[in-house]
Amino acid sequence: MKITIAQLNPTIGDLSRNAQEILRVAKQAGEAGADLLLTPELSLCGYSPRDLLLDSSFIETIAQTLDQLAADLPPALAVLVGTVAQNERSAQAGEKPLFNSTALLSQGKVQQVFHKRLLPTYDVFDEDRYFEPGEEANTFTLQGVRIGVTICEDLWNDEEFWGKRSYGVNPIADLAAQGVNLVINLSASPYTVGKQRVREAMLQHSARRYDRPMIYANQVGGNDDLIFDGSSFAVNRQGEVVCRAKAFEADGVTIEFDTVAQDLRPGSIAAAVESADAEIWAALVLGVRDYARKCGFTQVVLGLSGGIDSALVAAIGAAALGAKNVLGVLMPSPYSSDHSITDALELAKNLGINTQTLPIAEVMQSYDRTLNDLFTGTTSGIAEENIQSRIRGNLLMAIANKFGHLLLSTGNKSEMAVGYCTLYGDMNGGLATIADVPKTRVYSLCHWLNNHAQLAFGKPLSEPSTEMIPKNILTKAPSAELKPGQVDQDSLPDYDILDEILERLIQRHESPAQIIQAGHGAEVVNRVTKLVTRAEFKRRQAPPGLKITDRAFGTGWRMPIAKRW
Amino acid sequence: MKITIAQLNPTIGDLSRNAQEILRVAKQAGEAGADLLLTPELSLCGYSPRDLLLDSSFIETIAQTLDQLAADLPPALAVLVGTVAQNERSAQAGEKPLFNSTALLSQGKVQQVFHKRLLPTYDVFDEDRYFEPGEEANTFTLQGVRIGVTICEDLWNDEEFWGKRSYGVNPIADLAAQGVNLVINLSASPYTVGKQRVREAMLQHSARRYDRPMIYANQVGGNDDLIFDGSSFAVNRQGEVVCRAKAFEADGVTIEFDTVAQDLRPGSIAAAVESADAEIWAALVLGVRDYARKCGFTQVVLGLSGGIDSALVAAIGAAALGAKNVLGVLMPSPYSSDHSITDALELAKNLGINTQTLPIAEVMQSYDRTLNDLFTGTTSGIAEENIQSRIRGNLLMAIANKFGHLLLSTGNKSEMAVGYCTLYGDMNGGLATIADVPKTRVYSLCHWLNNHAQLAFGKPLSEPSTEMIPKNILTKAPSAELKPGQVDQDSLPDYDILDEILERLIQRHESPAQIIQAGHGAEVVNRVTKLVTRAEFKRRQAPPGLKITDRAFGTGWRMPIAKRW
Repeated sequence: MKITIAQLNPTIGDLSRNAQEILRVAKQAGEAGADLLLTPELSLCGYSPRDLLLDSSFIETIAQTLDQLAADLPPALAVLVGTVAQNERSAQAGEKPLFNSTALLSQGKVQQVFHKRLLPTYDVFDEDRYFEPGEEANTFTLQGVRIGVTICEDLWNDEEFWGKRSYGVNPIADLAAQGVNLVINLSASPYTVGKQRVREAMLQHSARRYDRPMIYANQVGGNDDLIFDGSSFAVNRQGEVVCRAKAFEADGVTIEFDTVAQDLRPGSIAAAVESADAEIWAALVLGVRDYARKCGFTQVVLGLSGGIDSALVAAIGAAALGAKNVLGVLMPSPYSSDHSITDALELAKNLGINTQTLPIAEVMQSYDRTLNDLFTGTTSGIAEENIQSRIRGNLLMAIANKFGHLLLSTGNKSEMAVGYCTLYGDMNGGLATIADVPKTRVYSLCHWLNNHAQLAFGKPLSEPSTEMIPKNILTKAPSAELKPGQVDQDSLPDYDILDEILERLIQRHESPAQIIQAGHGAEVVNRVTKLVTRAEFKRRQAPPGLKITDRAFGTGWRMPIAKRW
Repeated sequence: MKITIAQLNPTIGDLSRNAQEILRVAKQAGEAGADLLLTPELSLCGYSPRDLLLDSSFIETIAQTLDQLAADLPPALAVLVGTVAQNERSAQAGEKPLFNSTALLSQGKVQQVFHKRLLPTYDVFDEDRYFEPGEEANTFTLQGVRIGVTICEDLWNDEEFWGKRSYGVNPIADLAAQGVNLVINLSASPYTVGKQRVREAMLQHSARRYDRPMIYANQVGGNDDLIFDGSSFAVNRQGEVVCRAKAFEADGVTIEFDTVAQDLRPGSIAAAVESADAEIWAALVLGVRDYARKCGFTQVVLGLSGGIDSALVAAIGAAALGAKNVLGVLMPSPYSSDHSITDALELAKNLGINTQTLPIAEVMQSYDRTLNDLFTGTTSGIAEENIQSRIRGNLLMAIANKFGHLLLSTGNKSEMAVGYCTLYGDMNGGLATIADVPKTRVYSLCHWLNNHAQLAFGKPLSEPSTEMIPKNILTKAPSAELKPGQVDQDSLPDYDILDEILERLIQRHESPAQIIQAGHGAEVVNRVTKLVTRAEFKRRQAPPGLKITDRAFGTGWRMPIAKRW
């Protein structure tokens, strides 16, 4: 039996186009002799539609689109399509109105509907907000093979693997008890650094534990802050990876289930991504490309300061949309160093992106004069520094508005954490490209990029030995250049120390006391903790930031602002 | 038996101060002869602590604070304190790690802990993210009276009242089956327009249905976007309201339970708020006052355009913090009408607030010159209009940064819905005061204010007959004044039509087809729908907005940006 994984990149809510895409790959798969086609979780509406699920017309249109798709598909091909289903018992039983479901389509009809049983409600996930958990183990039989259907989180509760339970039931155990021959999983599992290794280890464990082969079909593509990495794969009964689709791009792979051996045969295995830097690079490029495309932008603009953050974002933008579709704007002030200009121009030349230079001294002076009477007798400080940053933010937005470009903001996670950024200034943008990338990782990504420029840009470069990120950008001391001689470390601890404290605080949920016990100085830990708390009001107003870690500031970070803790 | 409701206003996370406040009111109540003191849901940490609940040191400190509070309280007084409790079975049973609980403290110890059974996970509520539902009906006995304990949502599932079930169990029915003599409810129920009437009708229904008296103790105060209105009350077995605490302020009321009649005796009944406008006014004043206070601000700044939105926000600020703590900034451009200045100055005089005038023509010219080459050959339009708005936003932020003021933004819900506002411009601020107030309601609030100035400002005015909002502000056509002769209705339908379409779309979840069927023109409905969808990126970056309706843009509005629907 031939099973094809359609690793699709749906657009949220674009039901007709998503259905057309399923139809297109189904026809291809049917012609290639496939018996079963797998599509990701909620493949018809894209994951996650979030509050679109509260609109009844959205739910009705999904149902209509599903029926039409069933009628249009090749009748002999069985297709699993991710969809939502009404919970008819909702009002009577006091249950949620919907299920997160997968429909089995064949012979022109919806044959069966399977409901997701484990509903993630943590981090960026809000499934309890919309869905009732399914109560039954989901199976169907195709050509005599009993197939167990699970949806994403349904696989993530193996208490042996995790050392604890996160839900009361384990759907795989139920399916094994029912004697299925094969377990498939339809996912929309967002990327975080190193997650694919965890997924494969987890399925390898479960396959061996239950002596069942498993196929994992994941969504790919960027949807707002979430980047889905694809990397669909399959493991045989021995827990060996027998098939893997590409990471970070749409793909289709076919696997054979041997009905005699009751196991999957070896298939094509795409190479795993070689390093964390390579993964993150690919994720961010996909995130920018899809956010732009799905919002209708073809060109991006960003401020080029001559610093490393904007250098990385410019490179990501060039890889995502093509260098000619990137405009870097240099906005020197009287406090800008000469190298801020020369470095930015060299970077732009290396990347092949367009530039504009707009000095801001005159606008600064006009603000100074406007505020002169009111500010008489005060000391120049944060207010004045922020004005500079906001002038730049305004100029960038003016360009974005005038030419229909998407403004990419360039702040990194370390800055966003401690508030070393200006609200309505350098935080401006439609997408915060590297808002989940700590400063130390920004450096390592830039070094990686210089060593893998050809891989990073997906095509032979005319001069592959070029340093994409100029050496001076990599070696000079980071500075906001908002006053003479300023460097980041006037205000912040060294970035390697800061980033470790931040990781403990944010990702590992450690308390200041625990971090101090781990060897960090009490003064610096308490100062950083206070900065993180105080910057909450800025983060609340930040653009969506591409998520690459287990805990990003964004939809999965829900912190009160007016608080004392 | 004497029962005192402590209608408290906790600060999120400020455990020691919240505990001190419980201690203070408990001592008072004890001295006044109370037997039982009720405090709101999560009274120790404030509602809602949101992701602070993910930090184990926060949970541990709550437990320590609770034990200390038990030891400090008058031993003879029974006190119910809202707290969180660890779920010891979590990892083994696959349950959430915490309960949303109420602890019964007396004789120096925690005597019993009751867990909330119905966990709201919709709109602004995320309780499934943190909490496991309690499984048992919660009761304790005091002086021979069997008391049933419910926490907030536990009361909101009477299928007779609602015509449907929202949860599988009804805790009141369980308590009645167990024969309790009295049901108490500890709440943190946020304000929305008219909600108190629903609460009272619901409890009246349940009291009659189960023939049990009920006491409802609510939190009061603003916490970010949510305003808790207090209005704690009690109903007797006949469903009559026998006691009501004040709305929108901390209060304490004492009720007597007659152990012979097994019913509550009549007590003091604060008057219900007289109108929707009076409610909303009080809610917004409390929201601004508490956001400022809990964030550490004593003064606010806002832009005074001479229009009705900023007039209302200035009045709210003056009522919240005192007129002398409000700075209105006039920032005329060459497109500003004369009346924009005279009206704003008259308003400021009526309110007694401070003003500053900062003309922006020079800064506008400096931007024009800076962008001149780049914008050559383009037509002046949205980009240029936004520059003006962003100059004003920058000046306001400069003042806020320089003097440590809280910037109040002045956009209304109608504008936020259709995107008739400038990101990084007039949207700037720490708090979006009227972001959930539709434009038509802005008018009615201003008319109400002019008729109730004395009530609104809580003190006799020197000239109570003064029109606080000048007549010309109430009668002139709304205009952003970003180009010559511009009025809002050049771009938008009349506000009465717009607001009705928006209410159907946003609050009633109607589809465009349904709204057209209700009698609105197809063209205008489709245009408004498209505007609402397109403005998602702006709303994502808006400051927290005070919520007064069932569906506000903010923490309870979770919409994808990159989508097609």
